[in-house]
Amino acid sequence: MDYTEPQFFRVMQYAARADRDVVDMVSGNPDWDPPEGLRDGLRDYAEASADDYQYPPSVGLTPLRDEIAARRGVDRNRVLITNGAGEANHLAMTGGLHHFDGNEILLTDPVYPYYAGRANFIGADISFVPVDEHNRLAPADVRAAASEETAVIVVNSPNNPTGAVYDAEAMAEFAAIAEEYDALLLSDEVYDHFDYAGRFSSALRADSDHVVATNSFSKTMAITGFRVGYVIFPPEDGPTGTLLERARTQHMLTNVTGSRPAQYAVLRALKTTSPDYYAACRRRLERRVDDFCAALAAAGAEYNRPDGGFYVMARFPDFPGSFENVYELIDEAGVAGMPGEAFGESRSDWIRFALVTSRVDEAAQRLANYFG
Amino acid sequence: MDYTEPQFFRVMQYAARADRDVVDMVSGNPDWDPPEGLRDGLRDYAEASADDYQYPPSVGLTPLRDEIAARRGVDRNRVLITNGAGEANHLAMTGGLHHFDGNEILLTDPVYPYYAGRANFIGADISFVPVDEHNRLAPADVRAAASEETAVIVVNSPNNPTGAVYDAEAMAEFAAIAEEYDALLLSDEVYDHFDYAGRFSSALRADSDHVVATNSFSKTMAITGFRVGYVIFPPEDGPTGTLLERARTQHMLTNVTGSRPAQYAVLRALKTTSPDYYAACRRRLERRVDDFCAALAAAGAEYNRPDGGFYVMARFPDFPGSFENVYELIDEAGVAGMPGEAFGESRSDWIRFALVTSRVDEAAQRLANYFG
Repeated sequence: MDYTEPQFFRVMQYAARADRDVVDMVSGNPDWDPPEGLRDGLRDYAEASADDYQYPPSVGLTPLRDEIAARRGVDRNRVLITNGAGEANHLAMTGGLHHFDGNEILLTDPVYPYYAGRANFIGADISFVPVDEHNRLAPADVRAAASEETAVIVVNSPNNPTGAVYDAEAMAEFAAIAEEYDALLLSDEVYDHFDYAGRFSSALRADSDHVVATNSFSKTMAITGFRVGYVIFPPEDGPTGTLLERARTQHMLTNVTGSRPAQYAVLRALKTTSPDYYAACRRRLERRVDDFCAALAAAGAEYNRPDGGFYVMARFPDFPGSFENVYELIDEAGVAGMPGEAFGESRSDWIRFALVTSRVDEAAQRLANYFG
Repeated sequence: MDYTEPQFFRVMQYAARADRDVVDMVSGNPDWDPPEGLRDGLRDYAEASADDYQYPPSVGLTPLRDEIAARRGVDRNRVLITNGAGEANHLAMTGGLHHFDGNEILLTDPVYPYYAGRANFIGADISFVPVDEHNRLAPADVRAAASEETAVIVVNSPNNPTGAVYDAEAMAEFAAIAEEYDALLLSDEVYDHFDYAGRFSSALRADSDHVVATNSFSKTMAITGFRVGYVIFPPEDGPTGTLLERARTQHMLTNVTGSRPAQYAVLRALKTTSPDYYAACRRRLERRVDDFCAALAAAGAEYNRPDGGFYVMARFPDFPGSFENVYELIDEAGVAGMPGEAFGESRSDWIRFALVTSRVDEAAQRLANYFG
């Protein structure tokens, strides 16, 4: 399918126009409050001097990069602040294509549609590696798909939409495959704070000069509208050091720099937010997973219980995950999800539900009634 | 020269390391306060609900696009909110190259280095059209330089670094040339509020489907760090309508969307700021132009009095605008400007001074003493 236009808005608009109450489980917008430190940061910034309203360094505010570098255990020089994980992934993907031989990007099926859309837009060849029956990407399948044509391998853990989380061993294998085929492993880790089994391991731990990790504060701090993300490149003095240099130039020539009030507020929140905030967010999601999965079981649906992230995929008897069926669920059951076919071929029978609503129980009950 | 890395930071860093007090006239960072409505917008946003912290539409907040569309006299659909004028220019330039035949971008000499850097980075051929002896781009010279290879013609009015402002007639001619050679006229109008002779005319008035106008609030509201700009494309139902469609997709796949607190605050400022604020900013700059030019005359320097914008270029006897000489001025006179050679060949004897400091008089006095 043509992924150039992500289809989220299409479904959200249909749901908004529906002639009834609909529980919106389409988008990945958190429905909880950001940390109070973030609001404090904005309050202080509103009183800052005119100087503080001017360009931050192109690579981002220095203390924000310091804070991220310390938390991720890397040198500050490797950290580039981006306009959300979107730009971070864009820089990594275009950089990998430019740096390494070959024009192919390996993606999973099912895939987060932005990856596929971006790969199409920049003219890459895409090869999809289907996940296994446990919704996981098997390193052996990635190795079998990789070739000299491969320039970038994209992994997302915790995964949207499957909920898979890759441990240190799997990540090390993905990195080894990237090294073996002289390609880039791009590891998108934006859901890293939503790891229910404690299995998550950043690709940075593989300590490979073929690994780039991307992240953002959109989900962690419930601020998808702020656009503060980052990318961590291999060291500049290593064999792939020009990746970083080129990304800095590309970032400067595309965006100049990221928005300063947003960076300022995120920095404040990073420095002041207790681990309790993140733990409470994770527990809230975990409870929603429990409730929603129990209701799906009661409704006779097949489902995958996510190890991380905040999406659940479900399959209902004789009800494939087409746009048509999703629209029917909106109109008849009052629940909006994303059709599995929007994520690729392997899960086209499934529907993805985002658990970012306090009405998870109600949605589950509506589904149970509709299919019961 | 290689424009890929804009050289502003190089000079600013040299000035910051100097062993003496230096008046910084390098960067284009306004030194005055933003409108109070902007700060009010941030204050209110800090108290907004969790919903308001999530993704705005990819094309930007609807009421912000409405406000801009009304002011520019265009349909809202044509307005795309970008991460500053940097992204706006990037979308327009890459879009023009993709849409029209030919791989050439026409730029002026002297040139704002970001245009040339971006054109290099995206693999375009560049043809430089020197300005005339009045520091103005002559339409006849643009026509002579244009060919079937030309895909994009970039004009910046009021101009950085020359201070030229193009009236309606000149803009109409530039648009006619773009139509004649089936190319895009990209008109960057970020200094439109700093028009001292009342001569400025937006390229949008040419009402051509070969014109794209870019702008931002960075200079107008003294918020270069906010990254709120916009681009206005030709109507979607016209012969060049796919330019808009493709830019929306590129914006979504690169940045997803722009930062919401910044858009929210700009919207508030647009709705609440009196024309007096903008007039006071313009008068402040005009007084600085007067003072600085008078002092340059007294120092025996040649200079161009800008019709708009906030830069003055000066030429001192036997003192070309090289990086070496600029460093000497920093160390010996305590004044930092940008070397003319950073902007191209035609003004390599000149030095650009940004009048975004309250110490314009002092800088002028220092220059007079040094060259006197």
